[in-house]
Amino acid sequence: MDIKTIEWKKNKIKIIDQTRLPDRLEYIYLDNIKDLRKAIRILSVRGAPALGAAGGLGVYLGIKDFKGKKKEFNRRLRDVALYLASSRPTARNLSWGIDRACNAALKNMHLNIDGIKLIALRESLAVIKDDIKASRSIGRYGASLIKDKDSILTICNAGILATVDYGTALGVLYRAKEEGRRFRVYICETRPLLQGTRLTAWELKKKGIEATVICDNTAASLFKDNKINKVISGADRIALNGDTANKIGTYNLAILSRYHNIPFYIAAPLSTFDFSLTSGEGILIEERNPQEVRTLLFKIRVAPLGVKVFNPSFDITRHELISAIITDKGIIRPPYGRNIRKYYVNQRSG
Amino acid sequence: MDIKTIEWKKNKIKIIDQTRLPDRLEYIYLDNIKDLRKAIRILSVRGAPALGAAGGLGVYLGIKDFKGKKKEFNRRLRDVALYLASSRPTARNLSWGIDRACNAALKNMHLNIDGIKLIALRESLAVIKDDIKASRSIGRYGASLIKDKDSILTICNAGILATVDYGTALGVLYRAKEEGRRFRVYICETRPLLQGTRLTAWELKKKGIEATVICDNTAASLFKDNKINKVISGADRIALNGDTANKIGTYNLAILSRYHNIPFYIAAPLSTFDFSLTSGEGILIEERNPQEVRTLLFKIRVAPLGVKVFNPSFDITRHELISAIITDKGIIRPPYGRNIRKYYVNQRSG
Repeated sequence: MDIKTIEWKKNKIKIIDQTRLPDRLEYIYLDNIKDLRKAIRILSVRGAPALGAAGGLGVYLGIKDFKGKKKEFNRRLRDVALYLASSRPTARNLSWGIDRACNAALKNMHLNIDGIKLIALRESLAVIKDDIKASRSIGRYGASLIKDKDSILTICNAGILATVDYGTALGVLYRAKEEGRRFRVYICETRPLLQGTRLTAWELKKKGIEATVICDNTAASLFKDNKINKVISGADRIALNGDTANKIGTYNLAILSRYHNIPFYIAAPLSTFDFSLTSGEGILIEERNPQEVRTLLFKIRVAPLGVKVFNPSFDITRHELISAIITDKGIIRPPYGRNIRKYYVNQRSG
Repeated sequence: MDIKTIEWKKNKIKIIDQTRLPDRLEYIYLDNIKDLRKAIRILSVRGAPALGAAGGLGVYLGIKDFKGKKKEFNRRLRDVALYLASSRPTARNLSWGIDRACNAALKNMHLNIDGIKLIALRESLAVIKDDIKASRSIGRYGASLIKDKDSILTICNAGILATVDYGTALGVLYRAKEEGRRFRVYICETRPLLQGTRLTAWELKKKGIEATVICDNTAASLFKDNKINKVISGADRIALNGDTANKIGTYNLAILSRYHNIPFYIAAPLSTFDFSLTSGEGILIEERNPQEVRTLLFKIRVAPLGVKVFNPSFDITRHELISAIITDKGIIRPPYGRNIRKYYVNQRSG
């Protein structure tokens, strides 16, 4: 597919406006961090790895027109980082991308300001390149888990539209297809904003993969009827013990998979791991606008006026429910407590 | 609340048009079985016990204008019964209500046709009275399970709008409130047609019960965070071993409840039991229009064109996941295989 979820074009961030899909494939150009933050908040751009790219470029967007002294520049850098990172607190990659661009700048404070800006831009372009590589690598590792005649359930969108290109969970499926495997996919529609129906179904159709959309609450009966033999999902943040934050409903699927004895896989780049967290307890869960649930895509009111809503955007899947985590550096299996640390060590020394 | 979900008025069936809720409380008058079947199909009237009442009255609607010979009358009676029963195959009470009216007629074939019609009408009015009594009785038995400070999750609508009056699962809550208990309720929105958000939230608000709507896939994380300590749901058909068909997603909740060690209750009148089925295997699951999932309430298209959808309206919860079944004759506890049969014997001899 000749589409890029996010790229740097004409001194602006060019993104697909994902709120318009599947009706229209429209692009937006963002040239300031206020518009970028809004685009992130309303999910015009979304998906942890894509947010990493947006974060990196966002830092450059926030400093590129700066004129002033280095001390003020330093403060601007920090303000931009905080402003962008707070837009969606759960996705690890967002702050990871921001940190990469910021740290590159901070390490080069001996240069003049234009030079530092250039360093930040280069680093954010490197984030983009690295993400493309990471997705391809996840695909290569994960494809080994997909067999002919598999029937695979996924939730939300962890594909091209969640990354710079190719995808994490869906990247695994794309690679398996390229390697000649035949399989089918079920997609949880993923309330409230229906990324499964709107985005994943759109991608899989374009890729020629047979897919069926279900309401989120249909999963258990598909499991019982042996219509699914694998579950694969992306991730927004993974702790050192393997606990994984992902779209609300992922934890449900993990429990239902375990109950029916079906493997449950997470696919995510190492940039999704939060090596500062020993468990999922410390992961901040973003609560979103109740209107997402009181209405249908903000267009049709469905709830009685004034009804309370609880609308967390993520949940945390306990590590013991996860069969394996497919990363860009290899497949991590339990015990995660020991095995994830190896990658941490590798990453630091690499 | 001074509303009746279904009643017999001016020689017509008067129902609340539930597709209009919560925006408008509108009534429809039905004077022929074609319109009734349509109203049942599109869920203007829904909920297993309410469908029992609709079925009984529907039989009378289908024969009341009959003019002809008794042999043809007999055939008409059977045709009407089949026509109505096929509108929604899973709800046990629909065919149960139809059968009650039909059997009353068939037992009185020695009378003249006007006399037989009157018998059918009387029986269908008795179905309505019996359902009101059954709901109140379920409420009385079930309220004993609800404690102060409980936080209770429910799915779909098993309230006033699912019965002639009062409700099954929600009837239990209404009675507990009347008895002075204070508790809070979480409501699964219940995709695709959002009976939780549209109907249950509307009812609970009118009854002054504190309620919070969640997306269906939020249940597991609420369980994990100890925000819910009981689950209660209605039922569409219950087999002799306790296997229970109910709104799609109920089986999910039952598994999630078990995983988190939370009691899971079914509330239903004995008319929901199918004493011809030894297990849930034999229950026919209605599959509904894929457009319910491809669109939002038929108003906004969300899926890419031509995408496949699997849209079963019910699932079957295995009896081993059910803590107790609250009926109008008492609370049935495991082992269901033995204990449900007692009620069958009682009902036949009663």
